[in-house]
Amino acid sequence: MNEDYMKEALKEAKKAYKKLEVPIGAIIVKDGKIIARAHNLREKKQSSLAHAEIIAIKKACEKLESWRLDGADLYVTLEPCAMCAGAITQARINKVYFGAKDEKNGCVGSIANIFDDIPTTHRVKYEYVDNRDCSYILTKFFKELRHIKKM
Amino acid sequence: MNEDYMKEALKEAKKAYKKLEVPIGAIIVKDGKIIARAHNLREKKQSSLAHAEIIAIKKACEKLESWRLDGADLYVTLEPCAMCAGAITQARINKVYFGAKDEKNGCVGSIANIFDDIPTTHRVKYEYVDNRDCSYILTKFFKELRHIKKM
Repeated sequence: MNEDYMKEALKEAKKAYKKLEVPIGAIIVKDGKIIARAHNLREKKQSSLAHAEIIAIKKACEKLESWRLDGADLYVTLEPCAMCAGAITQARINKVYFGAKDEKNGCVGSIANIFDDIPTTHRVKYEYVDNRDCSYILTKFFKELRHIKKM
Repeated sequence: MNEDYMKEALKEAKKAYKKLEVPIGAIIVKDGKIIARAHNLREKKQSSLAHAEIIAIKKACEKLESWRLDGADLYVTLEPCAMCAGAITQARINKVYFGAKDEKNGCVGSIANIFDDIPTTHRVKYEYVDNRDCSYILTKFFKELRHIKKM
């Protein structure tokens, strides 16, 4: 785990935060280089697909001109949902690092485990990295959102 | 189940077939109208995300200008994979009809069941419709592909 990469994913989460999107960021690294970076844009794009991981995978495929992201690692500030975990598997990503657990929707150990429990030919490795900044920005966002809704 | 809608999804699968893509097609229906249609374009787009269901969801969100596809049904010629089943849940689709089972990658009953086994707030209904045309086009495609590879 390279902490600098998680910091870059966090920078992306901060961009989402400023746009009033749920603050989640992701980056994809291959051969020591960041090949894609993205943040959640579901509300702005009004697309249920616009999670940070999906946008990052789209960009990485475009960059490499290949649907196979073999050897690439994905850093994301929050545990992926089923769609994103499935997309990570489809893209043949090597390893996923996530900075906070998602007890409601996380499908890499919290409510399910797409990587371990679904028998696919490509097996994605993963590591939960307890990064307080990743969870703090989410807590802060939802606290402020509740405050706004009460006004 | 409206058989005409599965025929429309099959028309999409045929478009993929002609492009040498694995022949899978999908359509999304809301209030009796087809609001999106798509076919697999993974090779052409070189994107691991370019499954028929994902492209159809993207188009439907754009059409409705909303990430919520409540009340919409999705017809797809092949059982969705984990990514697509997750995306269908994220989009709040009402019901999925699929015309063939995917014993290797299908996550709506074959190798896993994303809709039944993952405890999410939105529960997607589903129905397997045994449509021989949906499985026939796939069998034909892979048979021809093997033939080409042998030449």
